Amino acid sequence: MTTTGSEEIMRATYTALCEFGYADLTMQDIADNTDKSKATLHYHYDSKHALLLEFLDHLYEKFTERVNQPTGNGPTEELVAFIDLVMTPPEPDEHSHEEFGTAMLELKAQAPYDTGIRDRMQQFDDFMISAIRESLIAGMDAGEIRDIDPDTVARFLVTSITGARTNEVAIGQNLAATHQTLLQYIETHLLTSEKDGMLNIAEVEELR
Amino acid sequence: MTTTGSEEIMRATYTALCEFGYADLTMQDIADNTDKSKATLHYHYDSKHALLLEFLDHLYEKFTERVNQPTGNGPTEELVAFIDLVMTPPEPDEHSHEEFGTAMLELKAQAPYDTGIRDRMQQFDDFMISAIRESLIAGMDAGEIRDIDPDTVARFLVTSITGARTNEVAIGQNLAATHQTLLQYIETHLLTSEKDGMLNIAEVEELR
Repeated sequence: MTTTGSEEIMRATYTALCEFGYADLTMQDIADNTDKSKATLHYHYDSKHALLLEFLDHLYEKFTERVNQPTGNGPTEELVAFIDLVMTPPEPDEHSHEEFGTAMLELKAQAPYDTGIRDRMQQFDDFMISAIRESLIAGMDAGEIRDIDPDTVARFLVTSITGARTNEVAIGQNLAATHQTLLQYIETHLLTSEKDGMLNIAEVEELR
Repeated sequence: MTTTGSEEIMRATYTALCEFGYADLTMQDIADNTDKSKATLHYHYDSKHALLLEFLDHLYEKFTERVNQPTGNGPTEELVAFIDLVMTPPEPDEHSHEEFGTAMLELKAQAPYDTGIRDRMQQFDDFMISAIRESLIAGMDAGEIRDIDPDTVARFLVTSITGARTNEVAIGQNLAATHQTLLQYIETHLLTSEKDGMLNIAEVEELR
């Protein structure tokens, strides 16, 4: 399939997941959001499950591309930019942000029964931990970040990000509020005095 | 219904949730784990949904009872005991811990569509934040905990606990490892020098 054709199907999968959730999703629902027939979809993907795994790979690729763009800034700025990115994910359609989060949580609840899904969730988690860990180590080398254990702190931050997303879906907890809490943690507990006040927390406050 | 009868149904609901998950659960599955008929269950609970809400209320009651037992210790010890409790929840059957976590995550993914479930998830979250917040304030008054914003820190800790539970289900992340990370955070970032070294982190390490 051409990249454009594949891109169209990935976008259609996103839209259909937002509309129907994971459990009720059918190949027909996805086809309805493309100019292709269900038969064409089946020609390229053996099953709904195969298409979904491809979709998760696609999300991962897009996500890592965005993160890996060089910012030309220092390690602390990179860490903050990463937190900003994961706490305010850009969505093709802003209104579907909540619906997509719900579908992703449904997928996570499926992960124990499904190694394909589980491996991909693990991949996201590993990538986030590794990206944060690298920024922390670079920040310590540059004297911007205190002498902390980068593994522990990276894992802690990623666990909080996961919790923020779960709570956003389950109890409607404002993502912007947790975003602010994460920045406060970085400012108060991680930055050396040299970087004091670099994070303008008040700006984030306005998002609530 | 007698308390014993109700207790039996709650235990049967727990067992059936572990076995079948939320989506596939039927009243018959629950009845099969009691000496009652499905008709008797329907006499007491209008629907599977009503029984499940009752079950969540029952969990909440048990949880708050355990937390509210006076320990006779200081605020820092209480905070640590609370973290220990939520990170190593006692289960009627140890082998079903993972299955139960999966069912709870499924329920969380249902919360956006179901205000009854959502309200109960919110209640758990509010209770945890409030319990941690109280320990933090008492700890600051006693000079054991540094001058931090108790609301922010309590919310951050609870968000991490939620993330740890999601990750335990979705990617099999070891709960004991996150438990250790939380204790390290408390030791390094929250305790005053007066309380230095009070947490024996090595002991937790052995749980991994």
